[in-house]
Amino acid sequence: MRYIKLTIAYDGTDFHGWQIQSGKPTIQGEIVAVLRRLTQENIAIHGAGRTDAGVHALGQVASFRSQTALTTGELQRALNALLPPTIRIVTADETGPDFNARWSARAKTYRYRLYRGKVVPPMIWRYVLHYPFPLDEERMREAATRFVGGHDFAAFAASTGSEEDDKERSTVREIYATDLKRSADDEELVFTVRGRSFLRYMVRKMVGTLLDVGRGRLAPEDIDKLYELKDRSKSGPTVPAHGLCMVSVEHEEAFRIR
Amino acid sequence: MRYIKLTIAYDGTDFHGWQIQSGKPTIQGEIVAVLRRLTQENIAIHGAGRTDAGVHALGQVASFRSQTALTTGELQRALNALLPPTIRIVTADETGPDFNARWSARAKTYRYRLYRGKVVPPMIWRYVLHYPFPLDEERMREAATRFVGGHDFAAFAASTGSEEDDKERSTVREIYATDLKRSADDEELVFTVRGRSFLRYMVRKMVGTLLDVGRGRLAPEDIDKLYELKDRSKSGPTVPAHGLCMVSVEHEEAFRIR
Repeated sequence: MRYIKLTIAYDGTDFHGWQIQSGKPTIQGEIVAVLRRLTQENIAIHGAGRTDAGVHALGQVASFRSQTALTTGELQRALNALLPPTIRIVTADETGPDFNARWSARAKTYRYRLYRGKVVPPMIWRYVLHYPFPLDEERMREAATRFVGGHDFAAFAASTGSEEDDKERSTVREIYATDLKRSADDEELVFTVRGRSFLRYMVRKMVGTLLDVGRGRLAPEDIDKLYELKDRSKSGPTVPAHGLCMVSVEHEEAFRIR
Repeated sequence: MRYIKLTIAYDGTDFHGWQIQSGKPTIQGEIVAVLRRLTQENIAIHGAGRTDAGVHALGQVASFRSQTALTTGELQRALNALLPPTIRIVTADETGPDFNARWSARAKTYRYRLYRGKVVPPMIWRYVLHYPFPLDEERMREAATRFVGGHDFAAFAASTGSEEDDKERSTVREIYATDLKRSADDEELVFTVRGRSFLRYMVRKMVGTLLDVGRGRLAPEDIDKLYELKDRSKSGPTVPAHGLCMVSVEHEEAFRIR
Protein backbone atom coordinates (compact mmCIF):
# COMPACT_ATOMS: atom_id res chain seq x y z
CA MET A 1 0.00 0.00 0.00
CA ARG A 2 1.21 3.51 -0.80
CA TYR A 3 0.43 6.70 1.10
CA ILE A 4 0.11 9.86 -0.99
CA LYS A 5 -0.01 13.50 0.06
CA LEU A 6 -1.42 16.08 -2.37
CA THR A 7 -1.08 19.85 -2.20
CA ILE A 8 -4.05 21.39 -3.97
CA ALA A 9 -4.96 24.85 -5.26
CA TYR A 10 -8.49 25.73 -6.30
CA ASP A 11 -10.85 28.49 -7.26
CA GLY A 12 -13.83 27.78 -5.01
CA THR A 13 -16.29 29.94 -6.97
CA ASP A 14 -18.08 27.12 -8.75
CA PHE A 15 -17.97 24.56 -5.92
CA HIS A 16 -20.07 23.84 -2.86
CA GLY A 17 -16.94 23.81 -0.72
CA TRP A 18 -14.33 21.13 -0.12
CA GLN A 19 -16.43 18.35 1.42
CA ILE A 20 -18.07 15.73 -0.75
CA GLN A 21 -21.88 16.07 -1.08
CA SER A 22 -24.05 13.95 -3.31
CA GLY A 23 -25.40 15.78 -6.34
CA LYS A 24 -23.30 18.93 -5.80
CA PRO A 25 -19.91 19.77 -7.26
CA THR A 26 -17.29 19.89 -4.49
CA ILE A 27 -13.51 19.87 -4.65
CA GLN A 28 -13.15 16.64 -2.68
CA GLY A 29 -15.88 15.08 -4.84
CA GLU A 30 -14.14 16.01 -8.11
CA ILE A 31 -10.76 14.69 -6.95
CA VAL A 32 -12.18 11.44 -5.54
CA ALA A 33 -14.15 10.78 -8.74
CA VAL A 34 -11.06 11.25 -10.93
CA LEU A 35 -8.85 9.18 -8.58
CA ARG A 36 -11.34 6.31 -8.61
CA ARG A 37 -11.60 6.30 -12.42
CA LEU A 38 -7.83 6.50 -12.71
CA THR A 39 -6.94 3.75 -10.21
CA GLN A 40 -10.10 1.59 -10.26
CA GLU A 41 -9.77 1.56 -6.47
CA ASN A 42 -12.39 2.68 -3.93
CA ILE A 43 -10.23 5.58 -2.76
CA ALA A 44 -11.15 7.96 0.09
CA ILE A 45 -9.26 11.22 0.56
CA HIS A 46 -8.86 13.29 3.72
CA GLY A 47 -8.45 17.06 3.52
CA ALA A 48 -6.59 19.15 6.10
CA GLY A 49 -9.55 21.53 6.36
CA ARG A 50 -13.12 21.68 5.12
CA THR A 51 -13.25 24.98 3.28
CA ASP A 52 -16.78 26.37 2.88
CA ALA A 53 -18.60 27.04 -0.39
CA GLY A 54 -16.83 29.79 -2.34
CA VAL A 55 -13.58 29.69 -0.34
CA HIS A 56 -10.38 29.29 -2.38
CA ALA A 57 -7.10 27.51 -1.69
CA LEU A 58 -3.48 27.80 -2.73
CA GLY A 59 -2.22 25.05 -0.44
CA GLN A 60 -4.97 22.71 0.76
CA VAL A 61 -3.47 19.33 1.68
CA ALA A 62 -5.13 15.95 1.24
CA SER A 63 -4.00 12.38 1.79
CA PHE A 64 -5.09 8.98 0.52
CA ARG A 65 -3.98 5.36 0.25
CA SER A 66 -3.63 3.58 -3.06
CA GLN A 67 -1.99 0.63 -4.77
CA THR A 68 -1.48 2.57 -8.00
CA ALA A 69 1.65 1.86 -10.05
CA LEU A 70 1.89 5.49 -11.15
CA THR A 71 4.80 7.55 -9.85
CA THR A 72 3.85 10.67 -7.89
CA GLY A 73 4.86 12.80 -10.89
CA GLU A 74 2.66 10.74 -13.22
CA LEU A 75 -0.20 10.85 -10.73
CA GLN A 76 0.06 14.65 -10.56
CA ARG A 77 0.10 15.02 -14.36
CA ALA A 78 -2.78 12.57 -14.86
CA LEU A 79 -4.93 14.26 -12.20
CA ASN A 80 -4.27 17.72 -13.66
CA ALA A 81 -5.11 16.41 -17.13
CA LEU A 82 -8.48 15.07 -15.94
CA LEU A 83 -9.52 17.71 -13.38
CA PRO A 84 -11.06 21.07 -14.37
CA PRO A 85 -8.57 23.99 -14.59
CA THR A 86 -10.10 25.45 -11.41
CA ILE A 87 -8.61 22.55 -9.39
CA ARG A 88 -4.84 21.96 -9.62
CA ILE A 89 -2.58 19.42 -7.96
CA VAL A 90 0.44 21.57 -7.07
CA THR A 91 2.51 18.69 -5.69
CA ALA A 92 2.08 14.96 -5.10
CA ASP A 93 4.41 13.27 -2.62
CA GLU A 94 4.94 9.87 -1.07
CA THR A 95 4.22 9.89 2.67
CA GLY A 96 3.91 7.35 5.49
CA PRO A 97 1.04 5.25 6.89
CA ASP A 98 0.69 7.55 9.94
CA PHE A 99 0.16 10.66 7.85
CA ASN A 100 -3.40 11.97 7.76
CA ALA A 101 -3.80 15.42 6.19
CA ARG A 102 -6.30 16.41 8.85
CA TRP A 103 -4.93 14.92 12.04
CA SER A 104 -1.27 15.48 11.23
CA ALA A 105 -1.78 19.21 10.54
CA ARG A 106 0.09 21.45 12.96
CA ALA A 107 -0.83 24.89 11.56
CA LYS A 108 -2.96 26.49 8.89
CA THR A 109 -2.69 29.89 7.27
CA TYR A 110 -5.67 31.76 5.83
CA ARG A 111 -5.78 35.04 3.95
CA TYR A 112 -8.69 37.43 3.38
CA ARG A 113 -8.49 40.11 0.65
CA LEU A 114 -10.38 43.42 0.90
CA TYR A 115 -10.33 45.47 -2.31
CA ARG A 116 -10.11 49.16 -1.32
CA GLY A 117 -10.04 50.75 -4.81
CA LYS A 118 -13.09 52.19 -6.56
CA VAL A 119 -13.45 49.56 -9.31
CA VAL A 120 -12.62 45.85 -8.84
CA PRO A 121 -10.63 44.59 -11.86
CA PRO A 122 -12.64 41.86 -13.67
CA MET A 123 -9.68 39.47 -13.33
CA ILE A 124 -9.86 39.37 -9.50
CA TRP A 125 -13.50 39.93 -8.54
CA ARG A 126 -13.82 36.25 -7.58
CA TYR A 127 -11.07 36.59 -4.95
CA VAL A 128 -11.69 39.87 -3.11
CA LEU A 129 -14.43 41.55 -1.08
CA HIS A 130 -15.03 45.05 -2.44
CA TYR A 131 -14.91 47.44 0.50
CA PRO A 132 -14.28 50.96 -0.88
CA PHE A 133 -15.60 52.75 2.23
CA PRO A 134 -13.48 54.60 4.83
CA LEU A 135 -11.65 52.46 7.39
CA ASP A 136 -9.27 53.33 10.21
CA GLU A 137 -6.63 50.82 9.17
CA GLU A 138 -4.31 51.71 12.07
CA ARG A 139 -6.94 50.70 14.62
CA MET A 140 -7.69 47.54 12.64
CA ARG A 141 -4.00 46.62 12.75
CA GLU A 142 -4.01 47.10 16.51
CA ALA A 143 -7.15 44.95 16.83
CA ALA A 144 -5.63 42.20 14.63
CA THR A 145 -2.73 41.74 17.07
CA ARG A 146 -5.24 40.95 19.83
CA PHE A 147 -6.21 37.71 18.11
CA VAL A 148 -2.76 36.25 18.76
CA GLY A 149 -2.50 33.70 21.58
CA GLY A 150 -4.83 31.12 23.10
CA HIS A 151 -8.37 32.49 23.48
CA ASP A 152 -11.94 31.31 23.73
CA PHE A 153 -13.24 32.22 20.28
CA ALA A 154 -16.90 31.34 21.07
CA ALA A 155 -17.96 34.83 19.91
CA PHE A 156 -16.29 34.08 16.55
CA ALA A 157 -17.81 30.64 15.98
CA ALA A 158 -20.71 29.53 13.85
CA SER A 159 -23.52 27.95 15.81
CA THR A 160 -23.60 24.16 15.57
CA GLY A 161 -27.39 24.48 15.49
CA SER A 162 -27.68 22.79 18.91
CA GLU A 163 -27.36 24.81 22.12
CA GLU A 164 -26.05 21.80 24.00
CA ASP A 165 -23.39 21.08 21.41
CA ASP A 166 -22.40 24.75 21.46
CA LYS A 167 -21.72 24.48 25.20
CA GLU A 168 -20.01 21.11 25.09
CA ARG A 169 -17.44 21.62 22.37
CA SER A 170 -14.38 23.61 23.24
CA THR A 171 -14.13 26.92 21.41
CA VAL A 172 -10.62 27.63 22.67
CA ARG A 173 -8.17 27.99 19.80
CA GLU A 174 -4.56 29.09 19.49
CA ILE A 175 -3.55 31.76 16.98
CA TYR A 176 0.19 31.98 16.26
CA ALA A 177 0.30 35.16 14.20
CA THR A 178 -1.79 37.75 12.38
CA ASP A 179 -0.90 40.36 9.80
CA LEU A 180 -2.92 43.16 8.25
CA LYS A 181 -1.30 45.10 5.45
CA ARG A 182 -1.70 46.71 2.06
CA SER A 183 -0.91 44.67 -1.07
CA ALA A 184 2.09 45.58 -3.23
CA ASP A 185 -0.12 47.64 -5.57
CA ASP A 186 -1.71 49.35 -2.52
CA GLU A 187 -5.24 48.52 -3.77
CA GLU A 188 -5.95 45.76 -1.24
CA LEU A 189 -5.98 45.39 2.52
CA VAL A 190 -4.97 41.81 3.27
CA PHE A 191 -5.53 39.97 6.54
CA THR A 192 -3.40 36.89 7.14
CA VAL A 193 -3.84 34.58 10.11
CA ARG A 194 -1.88 31.49 11.14
CA GLY A 195 -3.14 29.19 13.85
CA ARG A 196 -3.26 25.64 15.12
CA SER A 197 -6.85 25.17 13.96
CA PHE A 198 -9.98 27.24 13.43
CA LEU A 199 -13.68 27.12 14.26
CA ARG A 200 -16.15 27.21 11.40
CA TYR A 201 -16.53 30.80 10.03
CA MET A 202 -13.90 31.97 12.54
CA VAL A 203 -11.65 33.76 10.03
CA ARG A 204 -14.63 35.41 8.33
CA LYS A 205 -15.98 36.51 11.73
CA MET A 206 -12.52 37.88 12.64
CA VAL A 207 -12.51 39.95 9.43
CA GLY A 208 -16.07 41.17 10.05
CA THR A 209 -15.00 42.24 13.53
CA LEU A 210 -11.91 44.02 12.15
CA LEU A 211 -14.22 45.89 9.74
CA ASP A 212 -16.39 46.92 12.71
CA VAL A 213 -13.25 48.26 14.38
CA GLY A 214 -12.24 50.04 11.16
CA ARG A 215 -15.56 51.83 10.90
CA GLY A 216 -15.64 52.76 14.60
CA ARG A 217 -18.37 50.42 15.81
CA LEU A 218 -15.93 48.54 18.01
CA ALA A 219 -12.66 49.52 19.69
CA PRO A 220 -9.53 47.31 19.42
CA GLU A 221 -9.83 46.46 23.13
CA ASP A 222 -13.36 45.13 22.54
CA ILE A 223 -11.72 42.03 21.05
CA ASP A 224 -10.60 41.03 24.55
CA LYS A 225 -14.12 41.64 25.89
CA LEU A 226 -15.52 39.34 23.20
CA TYR A 227 -13.38 36.48 24.58
CA GLU A 228 -15.15 37.03 27.94
CA LEU A 229 -18.66 37.60 26.55
CA LYS A 230 -18.59 34.55 24.24
CA ASP A 231 -21.56 36.14 22.43
CA ARG A 232 -21.75 35.74 18.64
CA SER A 233 -24.18 38.66 18.34
CA LYS A 234 -21.57 41.09 19.75
CA SER A 235 -18.81 40.32 17.25
CA GLY A 236 -18.78 41.60 13.67
CA PRO A 237 -20.64 40.03 10.73
CA THR A 238 -19.44 36.92 8.88
CA VAL A 239 -17.93 38.40 5.69
CA PRO A 240 -18.56 36.65 2.34
CA ALA A 241 -16.65 33.46 1.54
CA HIS A 242 -15.14 34.55 -1.77
CA GLY A 243 -12.50 36.85 -0.20
CA LEU A 244 -11.06 33.93 1.78
CA CYS A 245 -8.21 31.66 0.73
CA MET A 246 -6.53 28.75 2.54
CA VAL A 247 -2.91 29.63 1.85
CA SER A 248 -1.05 26.71 3.40
CA VAL A 249 -1.11 23.84 5.86
CA GLU A 250 1.93 22.82 7.86
CA HIS A 251 2.46 19.21 8.90
CA GLU A 252 4.95 17.52 11.15
CA GLU A 253 7.98 16.81 9.03
CA ALA A 254 8.39 13.43 10.76
CA PHE A 255 5.37 12.12 8.87
CA ARG A 256 7.02 12.63 5.52
CA ILE A 257 9.19 9.81 4.27
CA ARG A 258 10.62 11.77 1.32
CA MET B 1 -25.80 66.49 -26.71
CA ARG B 2 -22.95 65.07 -24.62
CA TYR B 3 -20.02 62.97 -25.80
CA ILE B 4 -18.77 60.31 -23.42
CA LYS B 5 -15.60 58.25 -23.47
CA LEU B 6 -15.44 55.02 -21.45
CA THR B 7 -12.35 53.03 -20.51
CA ILE B 8 -13.39 49.41 -20.03
CA ALA B 9 -11.80 46.31 -18.49
CA TYR B 10 -13.24 42.86 -19.07
CA ASP B 11 -12.69 39.17 -18.68
CA GLY B 12 -13.54 37.89 -22.17
CA THR B 13 -13.95 34.23 -21.13
CA ASP B 14 -17.73 34.16 -21.15
CA PHE B 15 -18.28 36.48 -24.14
CA HIS B 16 -18.34 36.08 -27.90
CA GLY B 17 -15.93 38.98 -28.25
CA TRP B 18 -16.48 42.73 -28.19
CA GLN B 19 -18.79 43.20 -31.15
CA ILE B 20 -22.56 43.05 -30.72
CA GLN B 21 -24.21 39.88 -32.14
CA SER B 22 -27.83 38.98 -31.80
CA GLY B 23 -28.50 36.11 -29.40
CA LYS B 24 -24.91 35.92 -28.12
CA PRO B 25 -23.39 37.60 -25.08
CA THR B 26 -20.81 40.18 -26.17
CA ILE B 27 -19.17 43.02 -24.25
CA GLN B 28 -20.52 45.74 -26.56
CA GLY B 29 -23.96 44.12 -26.39
CA GLU B 30 -24.00 44.07 -22.58
CA ILE B 31 -22.91 47.71 -22.29
CA VAL B 32 -25.35 48.95 -24.95
CA ALA B 33 -28.26 47.09 -23.32
CA VAL B 34 -27.51 48.61 -19.89
CA LEU B 35 -26.96 52.12 -21.35
CA ARG B 36 -30.28 51.97 -23.20
CA ARG B 37 -32.19 50.85 -20.11
CA LEU B 38 -30.47 53.52 -18.03
CA THR B 39 -30.96 56.47 -20.41
CA GLN B 40 -34.06 55.40 -22.39
CA GLU B 41 -32.13 56.58 -25.47
CA ASN B 42 -31.29 54.54 -28.55
CA ILE B 43 -27.56 54.67 -27.83
CA ALA B 44 -24.85 53.22 -30.08
CA ILE B 45 -21.30 52.75 -28.81
CA HIS B 46 -18.07 52.58 -30.80
CA GLY B 47 -15.14 50.53 -29.52
CA ALA B 48 -11.50 51.28 -30.31
CA GLY B 49 -10.93 47.68 -31.36
CA ARG B 50 -13.02 44.57 -31.92
CA THR B 51 -11.49 42.03 -29.61
CA ASP B 52 -12.24 38.42 -30.59
CA ALA B 53 -14.10 35.84 -28.51
CA GLY B 54 -12.15 35.05 -25.35
CA VAL B 55 -9.78 38.03 -25.56
CA HIS B 56 -9.57 40.21 -22.43
CA ALA B 57 -9.09 43.94 -21.91
CA LEU B 58 -7.71 46.23 -19.24
CA GLY B 59 -8.12 49.42 -21.28
CA GLN B 60 -10.58 49.06 -24.14
CA VAL B 61 -12.01 52.48 -25.07
CA ALA B 62 -15.52 53.17 -26.29
CA SER B 63 -17.45 56.34 -27.10
CA PHE B 64 -21.12 57.29 -27.37
CA ARG B 65 -23.45 60.27 -27.48
CA SER B 66 -26.20 60.82 -24.95
CA GLN B 67 -28.47 63.45 -23.42
CA THR B 68 -28.28 61.86 -19.99
CA ALA B 69 -28.37 64.17 -16.96
CA LEU B 70 -26.04 61.85 -15.02
CA THR B 71 -22.54 63.13 -14.26
CA THR B 72 -19.71 60.97 -15.62
CA GLY B 73 -19.06 59.73 -12.07
CA GLU B 74 -22.71 58.74 -11.63
CA LEU B 75 -22.75 57.12 -15.06
CA GLN B 76 -19.69 55.03 -14.15
CA ARG B 77 -21.18 53.92 -10.82
CA ALA B 78 -24.58 53.12 -12.35
CA LEU B 79 -23.04 51.10 -15.20
CA ASN B 80 -20.82 49.14 -12.81
CA ALA B 81 -23.83 48.47 -10.58
CA LEU B 82 -25.82 47.04 -13.51
CA LEU B 83 -23.10 45.25 -15.52
CA PRO B 84 -21.74 41.80 -14.58
CA PRO B 85 -18.51 41.85 -12.50
CA THR B 86 -16.61 40.57 -15.57
CA ILE B 87 -17.14 43.96 -17.28
CA ARG B 88 -15.98 47.09 -15.46
CA ILE B 89 -16.07 50.75 -16.43
CA VAL B 90 -12.66 51.95 -15.25
CA THR B 91 -13.23 55.60 -16.15
CA ALA B 92 -15.97 57.70 -17.78
CA ASP B 93 -15.00 61.10 -19.19
CA GLU B 94 -16.59 63.93 -21.07
CA THR B 95 -15.15 64.27 -24.57
CA GLY B 96 -15.86 66.28 -27.73
CA PRO B 97 -18.09 65.73 -30.80
CA ASP B 98 -15.09 64.83 -32.97
CA PHE B 99 -13.98 62.01 -30.71
CA ASN B 100 -14.66 58.48 -31.98
CA ALA B 101 -12.98 55.71 -29.99
CA ARG B 102 -12.16 53.86 -33.19
CA TRP B 103 -11.13 56.57 -35.61
CA SER B 104 -9.40 58.80 -33.06
CA ALA B 105 -7.15 55.96 -31.82
CA ARG B 106 -3.47 56.60 -32.43
CA ALA B 107 -1.97 53.48 -30.86
CA LYS B 108 -2.99 50.24 -29.19
CA THR B 109 -1.05 47.99 -26.86
CA TYR B 110 -1.69 44.24 -26.57
CA ARG B 111 -0.16 41.71 -24.22
CA TYR B 112 0.06 37.93 -24.52
CA ARG B 113 0.89 35.78 -21.47
CA LEU B 114 2.63 32.40 -21.75
CA TYR B 115 2.69 30.42 -18.51
CA ARG B 116 6.03 28.56 -18.31
CA GLY B 117 5.62 26.83 -14.94
CA LYS B 118 4.50 23.23 -14.54
CA VAL B 119 1.05 23.88 -13.04
CA VAL B 120 -1.13 26.88 -13.94
CA PRO B 121 -2.60 28.43 -10.76
CA PRO B 122 -6.43 28.12 -10.84
CA MET B 123 -6.72 31.89 -10.30
CA ILE B 124 -5.07 32.75 -13.66
CA TRP B 125 -5.86 29.90 -16.06
CA ARG B 126 -8.35 32.12 -17.93
CA TYR B 127 -5.57 34.62 -18.79
CA VAL B 128 -2.54 32.60 -19.82
CA LEU B 129 -1.56 30.01 -22.41
CA HIS B 130 0.15 27.08 -20.70
CA TYR B 131 3.39 26.43 -22.55
CA PRO B 132 5.71 24.45 -20.22
CA PHE B 133 7.91 23.11 -23.03
CA PRO B 134 11.51 24.20 -23.77
CA LEU B 135 11.91 27.51 -25.63
CA ASP B 136 14.99 29.46 -26.70
CA GLU B 137 13.81 32.73 -25.20
CA GLU B 138 16.90 34.65 -26.34
CA ARG B 139 16.15 33.89 -29.99
CA MET B 140 12.49 34.76 -29.43
CA ARG B 141 13.52 38.14 -28.01
CA GLU B 142 15.66 38.76 -31.10
CA ALA B 143 12.75 37.76 -33.38
CA ALA B 144 10.34 40.04 -31.49
CA THR B 145 12.46 43.11 -32.30
CA ARG B 146 12.02 42.36 -36.03
CA PHE B 147 8.30 43.18 -35.81
CA VAL B 148 9.11 46.84 -35.09
CA GLY B 149 8.61 49.26 -37.98
CA GLY B 150 6.32 49.43 -41.02
CA HIS B 151 5.92 46.00 -42.64
CA ASP B 152 3.53 44.07 -44.83
CA PHE B 153 1.98 41.70 -42.27
CA ALA B 154 0.01 39.66 -44.86
CA ALA B 155 1.61 36.46 -43.52
CA PHE B 156 0.24 37.36 -40.07
CA ALA B 157 -3.31 38.17 -41.15
CA ALA B 158 -6.50 36.16 -40.95
CA SER B 159 -8.07 35.45 -44.30
CA THR B 160 -11.08 37.64 -45.05
CA GLY B 161 -12.60 34.54 -46.66
CA SER B 162 -12.39 36.13 -50.10
CA GLU B 163 -9.24 35.90 -52.20
CA GLU B 164 -10.04 39.17 -53.96
CA ASP B 165 -10.59 41.02 -50.68
CA ASP B 166 -7.35 39.56 -49.36
CA LYS B 167 -5.48 41.10 -52.29
CA GLU B 168 -7.28 44.43 -52.24
CA ARG B 169 -6.96 45.45 -48.60
CA SER B 170 -3.65 46.78 -47.42
CA THR B 171 -1.89 44.51 -44.96
CA VAL B 172 0.83 47.05 -44.19
CA ARG B 173 0.89 48.00 -40.53
CA GLU B 174 3.24 49.99 -38.31
CA ILE B 175 4.53 48.54 -35.07
CA TYR B 176 6.06 51.05 -32.64
CA ALA B 177 7.53 48.71 -30.06
CA THR B 178 7.67 45.11 -28.86
CA ASP B 179 8.84 43.57 -25.62
CA LEU B 180 9.30 39.96 -24.55
CA LYS B 181 10.19 39.33 -20.94
CA ARG B 182 9.63 37.24 -17.86
CA SER B 183 6.98 38.33 -15.34
CA ALA B 184 8.03 39.54 -11.89
CA ASP B 185 7.46 36.04 -10.41
CA ASP B 186 9.44 34.54 -13.33
CA GLU B 187 6.63 32.07 -14.12
CA GLU B 188 5.40 33.80 -17.29
CA LEU B 189 6.88 34.91 -20.59
CA VAL B 190 4.99 38.04 -21.61
CA PHE B 191 4.89 39.52 -25.11
CA THR B 192 3.82 43.15 -25.37
CA VAL B 193 3.29 44.94 -28.68
CA ARG B 194 2.36 48.56 -29.36
CA GLY B 195 1.30 49.67 -32.83
CA ARG B 196 -0.84 52.06 -34.81
CA SER B 197 -3.37 49.32 -35.65
CA PHE B 198 -3.50 45.57 -36.15
CA LEU B 199 -4.90 43.05 -38.63
CA ARG B 200 -7.30 40.45 -37.33
CA TYR B 201 -5.43 37.63 -35.45
CA MET B 202 -2.16 39.50 -36.07
CA VAL B 203 -0.93 39.52 -32.46
CA ARG B 204 -1.85 35.86 -32.00
CA LYS B 205 -0.04 34.98 -35.26
CA MET B 206 3.00 36.98 -34.07
CA VAL B 207 3.05 34.97 -30.82
CA GLY B 208 2.62 31.67 -32.72
CA THR B 209 5.57 32.67 -34.91
CA LEU B 210 7.67 33.59 -31.88
CA LEU B 211 6.88 30.13 -30.44
CA ASP B 212 8.07 28.57 -33.72
CA VAL B 213 11.31 30.54 -33.33
CA GLY B 214 11.58 29.45 -29.70
CA ARG B 215 11.30 25.77 -30.59
CA GLY B 216 13.69 26.07 -33.53
CA ARG B 217 11.25 25.68 -36.43
CA LEU B 218 12.00 29.22 -37.61
CA ALA B 219 15.03 31.50 -37.27
CA PRO B 220 14.67 35.13 -36.10
CA GLU B 221 15.62 36.33 -39.61
CA ASP B 222 12.73 34.32 -41.08
CA ILE B 223 10.44 37.09 -39.79
CA ASP B 224 11.84 39.39 -42.51
CA LYS B 225 11.31 36.66 -45.13
CA LEU B 226 7.68 36.36 -44.06
CA TYR B 227 7.16 40.05 -44.94
CA GLU B 228 8.32 39.17 -48.46
CA LEU B 229 6.49 35.84 -48.79
CA LYS B 230 3.13 37.20 -47.57
CA ASP B 231 2.12 33.55 -47.02
CA ARG B 232 -0.01 32.73 -44.00
CA SER B 233 0.93 29.05 -44.16
CA LYS B 234 4.60 29.89 -43.54
CA SER B 235 4.12 31.84 -40.30
CA GLY B 236 3.40 30.22 -36.94
CA PRO B 237 0.00 29.07 -35.71
CA THR B 238 -2.67 31.40 -34.35
CA VAL B 239 -2.34 30.90 -30.58
CA PRO B 240 -5.54 30.68 -28.46
CA ALA B 241 -7.45 33.88 -27.68
CA HIS B 242 -7.50 33.55 -23.89
CA GLY B 243 -3.83 34.52 -23.42
CA LEU B 244 -4.42 37.87 -25.15
CA CYS B 245 -5.32 41.15 -23.46
CA MET B 246 -5.90 44.63 -24.92
CA VAL B 247 -3.91 46.65 -22.42
CA SER B 248 -4.54 50.22 -23.58
CA VAL B 249 -5.58 52.51 -26.40
CA GLU B 250 -4.00 55.93 -26.92
CA HIS B 251 -6.00 58.77 -28.42
CA GLU B 252 -5.07 62.25 -29.55
CA GLU B 253 -5.24 64.40 -26.46
CA ALA B 254 -6.81 67.20 -28.49
CA PHE B 255 -10.06 65.27 -28.63
CA ARG B 256 -10.49 65.38 -24.87
CA ILE B 257 -12.18 68.43 -23.45
CA ARG B 258 -11.46 67.59 -19.80
